[in-house]
Amino acid sequence: MGFWKAWFSNPEAITTAKNTFVEEEKINAKANKKNVGNHIIFSTEREIDLYQLEELCDAVGWSRRPLRKVKKAIEHSFLVVSMWQVQNTQKHLIGFARATSDHAFNATIWDVVVHPKFQGKGLGKVLMQYILKQLRSEEISNVTLFADPDVVEFYQSLGFMPDPEGIKGMFWYPH
Amino acid sequence: MGFWKAWFSNPEAITTAKNTFVEEEKINAKANKKNVGNHIIFSTEREIDLYQLEELCDAVGWSRRPLRKVKKAIEHSFLVVSMWQVQNTQKHLIGFARATSDHAFNATIWDVVVHPKFQGKGLGKVLMQYILKQLRSEEISNVTLFADPDVVEFYQSLGFMPDPEGIKGMFWYPH
Repeated sequence: MGFWKAWFSNPEAITTAKNTFVEEEKINAKANKKNVGNHIIFSTEREIDLYQLEELCDAVGWSRRPLRKVKKAIEHSFLVVSMWQVQNTQKHLIGFARATSDHAFNATIWDVVVHPKFQGKGLGKVLMQYILKQLRSEEISNVTLFADPDVVEFYQSLGFMPDPEGIKGMFWYPH
Repeated sequence: MGFWKAWFSNPEAITTAKNTFVEEEKINAKANKKNVGNHIIFSTEREIDLYQLEELCDAVGWSRRPLRKVKKAIEHSFLVVSMWQVQNTQKHLIGFARATSDHAFNATIWDVVVHPKFQGKGLGKVLMQYILKQLRSEEISNVTLFADPDVVEFYQSLGFMPDPEGIKGMFWYPH
């Protein structure tokens, strides 16, 4: 666990690759050169292997969704963030989240997932902080989400407020 | 108020103009011919006069927002619905709502507004039903919104559920 500990005490170790894997590949190469061999990177690249994403969602027990629709949802999300474990020349998808938005005022975060093997290490928090940073850089000032009861506290620790001023999240499903 | 009564007892009287005002103009012409002179139409056309929209939002006491950002938000909304009172050859914007979406699973409805003069007549309900119908026709199955405490009951009457299974709507604002 030394790697994680060192990584969290040094925020500089979080590598972000914006909109492309080129940056990531460079970093990966660098890491290999230094023989680090194992690190975590974030990306906003949306060309994600849908089968890898499905595997990740399976791992947390989510119901399967048609890949055609997942593809469409990713294409039409404002922001797509993936988290990867890089081991030498291999990278594994270990986290994901996306946000819909009007590109001006609001963004809503959906499908936040961290692989069970990588949970409890603060990675979900870093993933969320990465998303918030991206949304802020786009001048989005109202970020919302719908939290399951067991993660309300987690999101509170990130500054999210449940029902501020009595505002209620509401859902409608077709009959 | 006979007009409103007649209108609500006859759902066929609700005219929808999808993505264009052509249909609307035809209906308007027809109405004039028949000398009806006054009716309500809905549109998904997003070329809305931003000053008219600002006037509508002013009428319900919303804080003003930069028109540049409102324009961007409308452009990047999945669905924009406006409600118009048509009197002879004039039309007045009396209601508005929009939704962001991933075009696949989720839509979130924002900025639902009905002019105070037209409130209490069931028009908000018709506006929402129109939106839900549009979203359903796009195969969106999870429709969400964030309701102020005083309109939670209104949305419940439309089938929206607050906190289903304890799911909490949460907000994050920049510090």
